[in-house]
Amino acid sequence: MSFRAISLVKIHKTVLRLHNINRVLTKTITTSACCKIKEEVAKLLALKAQLAPEDAAPQKFILKTPKGTRDYTPQQMTIRNEVLQKIITVFKRHGAECIDTPVFELKEVLTGKYGEDSKLIYDLKDQGGEILSLRYDLTVPLARYLAMSKINTLKRYHIAKVYRRDNPAMTRGRYREFYQCDFDIAGQYDPMVPDAECLRVVSEILDTLDIGRYVLKVNHRRLLDGMFEACGVPADNFRATCSTVDKLDKLSWDEVRTEMINEKGVTPEAADKIGEYVRLNGGTELVDKLLKDEKLSKTKAAVEGLDGIKLLLHYCELFGIKDKILFDLSLARGLDYYTGVIYEAVLTQPIKVGNEDQTVGSIAGGGRYDNLVGMFDSKKKQVPCVGVSVGVERVFSVLEARAAAGALRVRTSDVDVYVASAQKNFLDERMKICAELWSAGIKTEQSYKKNPKMLNQLQHCEEAGIPLCVVLGEDELRRGVVKVRDVGARREQDVPRDKLVDELTARIANLNTQLDGNK
Amino acid sequence: MSFRAISLVKIHKTVLRLHNINRVLTKTITTSACCKIKEEVAKLLALKAQLAPEDAAPQKFILKTPKGTRDYTPQQMTIRNEVLQKIITVFKRHGAECIDTPVFELKEVLTGKYGEDSKLIYDLKDQGGEILSLRYDLTVPLARYLAMSKINTLKRYHIAKVYRRDNPAMTRGRYREFYQCDFDIAGQYDPMVPDAECLRVVSEILDTLDIGRYVLKVNHRRLLDGMFEACGVPADNFRATCSTVDKLDKLSWDEVRTEMINEKGVTPEAADKIGEYVRLNGGTELVDKLLKDEKLSKTKAAVEGLDGIKLLLHYCELFGIKDKILFDLSLARGLDYYTGVIYEAVLTQPIKVGNEDQTVGSIAGGGRYDNLVGMFDSKKKQVPCVGVSVGVERVFSVLEARAAAGALRVRTSDVDVYVASAQKNFLDERMKICAELWSAGIKTEQSYKKNPKMLNQLQHCEEAGIPLCVVLGEDELRRGVVKVRDVGARREQDVPRDKLVDELTARIANLNTQLDGNK
Repeated sequence: MSFRAISLVKIHKTVLRLHNINRVLTKTITTSACCKIKEEVAKLLALKAQLAPEDAAPQKFILKTPKGTRDYTPQQMTIRNEVLQKIITVFKRHGAECIDTPVFELKEVLTGKYGEDSKLIYDLKDQGGEILSLRYDLTVPLARYLAMSKINTLKRYHIAKVYRRDNPAMTRGRYREFYQCDFDIAGQYDPMVPDAECLRVVSEILDTLDIGRYVLKVNHRRLLDGMFEACGVPADNFRATCSTVDKLDKLSWDEVRTEMINEKGVTPEAADKIGEYVRLNGGTELVDKLLKDEKLSKTKAAVEGLDGIKLLLHYCELFGIKDKILFDLSLARGLDYYTGVIYEAVLTQPIKVGNEDQTVGSIAGGGRYDNLVGMFDSKKKQVPCVGVSVGVERVFSVLEARAAAGALRVRTSDVDVYVASAQKNFLDERMKICAELWSAGIKTEQSYKKNPKMLNQLQHCEEAGIPLCVVLGEDELRRGVVKVRDVGARREQDVPRDKLVDELTARIANLNTQLDGNK
Repeated sequence: MSFRAISLVKIHKTVLRLHNINRVLTKTITTSACCKIKEEVAKLLALKAQLAPEDAAPQKFILKTPKGTRDYTPQQMTIRNEVLQKIITVFKRHGAECIDTPVFELKEVLTGKYGEDSKLIYDLKDQGGEILSLRYDLTVPLARYLAMSKINTLKRYHIAKVYRRDNPAMTRGRYREFYQCDFDIAGQYDPMVPDAECLRVVSEILDTLDIGRYVLKVNHRRLLDGMFEACGVPADNFRATCSTVDKLDKLSWDEVRTEMINEKGVTPEAADKIGEYVRLNGGTELVDKLLKDEKLSKTKAAVEGLDGIKLLLHYCELFGIKDKILFDLSLARGLDYYTGVIYEAVLTQPIKVGNEDQTVGSIAGGGRYDNLVGMFDSKKKQVPCVGVSVGVERVFSVLEARAAAGALRVRTSDVDVYVASAQKNFLDERMKICAELWSAGIKTEQSYKKNPKMLNQLQHCEEAGIPLCVVLGEDELRRGVVKVRDVGARREQDVPRDKLVDELTARIANLNTQLDGNK
């Protein structure tokens, strides 16, 4: 055996021994012993990093964006910015202020907030400073912000990217990096008043985006807890059972029932009772019926939840959105931090994209989380919060598909004037005119070539949808005029050189009036 | 000795042995041996993770954002959004399209692009997928995008956060997470035409932001190379010498000279010759003088650079920005990828913030990078690019400080109407009116309390700058009217309930006209 092979065996055996000692120690180890192990492993890793031949080995480099992410092209960005602008308009109509937080947080801030989903958090490499993770949503950063800044009341929106190491289904608009548009109301207020406004906000957003019929499902965490209690599930099993119920939008009841019994330790009898409840949905009449239900009416949590839903439905009626709301006992959002009402907005019809139907499903979700801010406060001071998050990526997907199918025309730049020349050696003159137009605030561009072909310049105007073109020529310049071309109509007209800015400003104002009229 | 203590010693010794074996192996180890070590270490780490008492141990948790980052409050976001909107207006005036890229890239994409600064890149933890890093700027992602999408021409802007593990000087607006606003023109065009437009764009942005006098410094990478060559620096030492010259904005010439000689291996004679050149700055007359310089005129690269600068200055004159441009031989931006013109915009006077003067210095930078896209293309196909990046964080800092000093009034929400009630039990009626106003597109809010105090409601209107308040009362409601209060003037007027939307819409339009008039 060679020295290398012998050494390898030695390492292997030594590590195994270490491994076994560790196993023995698992339950009895002290913190200091564990620290030692950590130190030694860190040293080993440092050594390994020095060796690291496999990292440096020349690999075939594939040019791509990271898994589950994508670039946004100018066309996609145009669609995206229009959608976000519409959403922001709604948020502002409700008086929301805008905040932003860093893309990463101390890892500890995120720890213990997302239940089973915590494994999807992106961690940053330990580069000898703080231990960081990318934000997983905008709710936990908001809670951290409120606690840190000692803010008791805030109505804010936050539009930003979040990160989840999920298995992406990109054709359905699910990515590892995606935008969330959150609206939240923090503060100690009267029951269900801010909660109802969140639903009104979602309803206004879905109306303005005009992407089809939808339903706003509501349920209550206290009712779910009460229901589990009434069905005989032990209290320490509520959350696990709840996250199984949450799968009802993807799995059949039989599959959910099996998971409850086999994985969550729910008895078959309890599961069957739950099964009867989660089939129910309706409006105020269902709330009244359940308030008289033999089991639920005796469970404090269930009654609290039902009373809450009843009040919420009343406020939704006042807000003019009653016909969009569905009280649904199968709604059970998975995140750990919800304490009261929970919401989900679902599109009820597949969306026509060209000749295909695209199913979008859930498009917004949220709920009340009264204990999250307190988790960050050293004195556990609570700031009750309720909010909703709009999953705009799915909206983008639908609109992008429509654009690709030719059903949506997207202009990616809004240039109004192109400065062209039919002859050679006009670059200097073109530049002077561009500068003049820019100084007058006119959106203008020109070719970056010294002597571009006339045909190419006009073609660019038509392709980019630029409505006006200034055409320079020897003859016109001698006469103190330039030609202004209406690109769409292909009509040209002489304009005195010193009246050019005025003429163009007037024409652009006229075009914009026409555009507004067409809307 | 207890069992635990003995075990601890055992682990310690074993790890040490492993450590030693690794040390012996460092230079002779095979890849397969290395893989084995890696495997074993992974197992150990997995075990450690199971044990992990120190992770769970109660530590003093400090509530903060990660080092070098910050939250943006509503006031900061309002300032920020206004600044970005002004910048976007300039970008769009020049016909730029908008793109976005993921916040992280495959680490390999960033490798070898930033020279000495590569150590500042944030890496993500290896969680069993691709090896990723946070973007360091928006230029390399653009080049990757162009190569990947096989795009030959693009004029785009990109506004997004970038990440650098730098030592932050946060009072001066330098952070580890910060916004960049980039404008770039990609395509094979005639010399200096797009290059000059980038300077015009920066000039328009600095004019519109109105944060003081500035100078746009220009230089040329070929001139720098030619200058080093003419001074006797070996070609393989150009880049290192260049990054030392780049420090002239922070260090004195003597310090830079010492670093050149001691760390970069430049001879004292060469350093002194460089010292004479980098003292020079001026306009076209300086270019003409240097074109006749004994040493430079014989160096091909220097002549190329000087010819380029001369043409650029000519175009800048046509663009009406000649008086803002300074040709400065000491300008030597550190990044590896520049190949032609380089820019830097510098504020020339400290900014008044309250009673203090704040020095901002460099506020934008950029240049030409003709080889970067080719580095990503499998056939090394080049797409020449030039662009500029605006460092808006420093602008934000200045404006925030002005706001804090009371010199800038910032309204963080633009609500026009508040719906209030002077008496109890008016929540239902308030909700109905809110819904009506929202449906009419009127920015409206109300208290989330059932029975808020009138004084608190009016106080909120005054603090938040809400101009109009609808006041509900028993008596008015009986008469079929509501009161509309002009919050600023503290005047109230009865308005028929069914004319409320019309009346408010008219008043708001009127207010906006006044506001526009005041601008």
